Amino acid sequence: MLPDRVFFDALADAAKGETLPRFRTGISVVNKLAGGFDPVTEGDRAAETAIRALIEERFPEHGILGEEHESIGLDREHVWVIDPIDGTRAFISGLPVWGTLIGFRSNGRATMGMMDQPFTGERYFADGSQSWYSGPDGERQISVRDCGSLSDAILFTTSPHIFQGEDLKRYRSVEEKVRLFRYGCDCYAYALLAAGHVDLVVENSLQPYDVGALIPIIEQAGGIITTWDGGRPENGGNIIAAGSRAVYEQAMALLAGR
Amino acid sequence: MLPDRVFFDALADAAKGETLPRFRTGISVVNKLAGGFDPVTEGDRAAETAIRALIEERFPEHGILGEEHESIGLDREHVWVIDPIDGTRAFISGLPVWGTLIGFRSNGRATMGMMDQPFTGERYFADGSQSWYSGPDGERQISVRDCGSLSDAILFTTSPHIFQGEDLKRYRSVEEKVRLFRYGCDCYAYALLAAGHVDLVVENSLQPYDVGALIPIIEQAGGIITTWDGGRPENGGNIIAAGSRAVYEQAMALLAGR
Repeated sequence: MLPDRVFFDALADAAKGETLPRFRTGISVVNKLAGGFDPVTEGDRAAETAIRALIEERFPEHGILGEEHESIGLDREHVWVIDPIDGTRAFISGLPVWGTLIGFRSNGRATMGMMDQPFTGERYFADGSQSWYSGPDGERQISVRDCGSLSDAILFTTSPHIFQGEDLKRYRSVEEKVRLFRYGCDCYAYALLAAGHVDLVVENSLQPYDVGALIPIIEQAGGIITTWDGGRPENGGNIIAAGSRAVYEQAMALLAGR
Repeated sequence: MLPDRVFFDALADAAKGETLPRFRTGISVVNKLAGGFDPVTEGDRAAETAIRALIEERFPEHGILGEEHESIGLDREHVWVIDPIDGTRAFISGLPVWGTLIGFRSNGRATMGMMDQPFTGERYFADGSQSWYSGPDGERQISVRDCGSLSDAILFTTSPHIFQGEDLKRYRSVEEKVRLFRYGCDCYAYALLAAGHVDLVVENSLQPYDVGALIPIIEQAGGIITTWDGGRPENGGNIIAAGSRAVYEQAMALLAGR
């Protein structure tokens, strides 16, 4: 049996109950971090625990790949892929551009997913064939946009500091070509791309749980998401997402050093 | 006569009526920008027009310094300082970290101010003696936090690309010392600082309308905001804002190259 929107909403609500009360708690976060910056907050762990409990009760036959706790049953037909707080730095900084990522794979392929931003009340969801937005301004089906070419594109990446050596050079060659680039949004950037507000996301060193929920949201909105080699993105690594084939091809030519 | 919160709310609501319907309009923004990136959107101009109309009707004796239209009466006792959309790049990218800035000066000193983020429903307001937050999680008085020292601070700046030459070197010397830094938030970073979620903002090349509304929000929340020379920030330029004296002094020592 496959999960439905109601069940995804229940998972996101359970996570929200653990994350939102811990968002913007001010000085307490600083104290907790004493002894070195540790992005794994209490909220992160508690939210994953809450999500897992619901999955294990309803779908005990499914596997779970999470950020915070041990993975189980990764060889099963259906596997949940969870990042309870993607964008822990945004979370710690009080910025509402982090998200709870809940992905669902069948036979190794990401087929359904949800990105929830509890503070703004935004929820992005891929139901297996289409992508949907709900938020303070209502609910609607979403699709990517085609800005025409790389020189008209808005590009997001987490930070230029994530790239090193040859990767940095290739990333910069893309950054130089776009109309506008922005740093620091993690999963939120992919959601904006799926909803047709931005055109390109380029990142590296991603984990499977960083992209598991986002792949179907982008693909079912008509977008493209692959590794820099053009392969399937389910395992993370160097990732590119684009709103149109033209922008994707132009960025890929630069990332491949061609 | 001085304005009150009700009047500030009316100004922010009038601006919201022009900005929010133009936020996240997708491909239309891209088309409008054809021929080069122009962050001055229709919403920017329309919002400032709406704010000015209300001020001119209610306080015809006040001056107005705005981003989009000609300034009037800058030598008057009371002057409004307006940036209808601060963070146009965020606005264009669909990120809800831009804001409408409405500041109020008496005899050259910033005394009242509002920062409104219409999508998230957050409003930060300095009433002349205290600073206030209202948002999806309620309403409350806000105050800065004291994280202890620069090495425990969270730092925000718009982008490392805003700094050049000696300024860049000095900015980097601060960035190297902090616990965590984030790029790309414009006015939203100052609001988070006033509310005690982050500790330090360092920027340069700011205009008076970029900071006019933010100065009282920070100062009346117990924070410090000056130029890099330690002077009053009303005229913009190189700006530093901090949540505590200790963090301010440590960052200032680095920015001054001492």
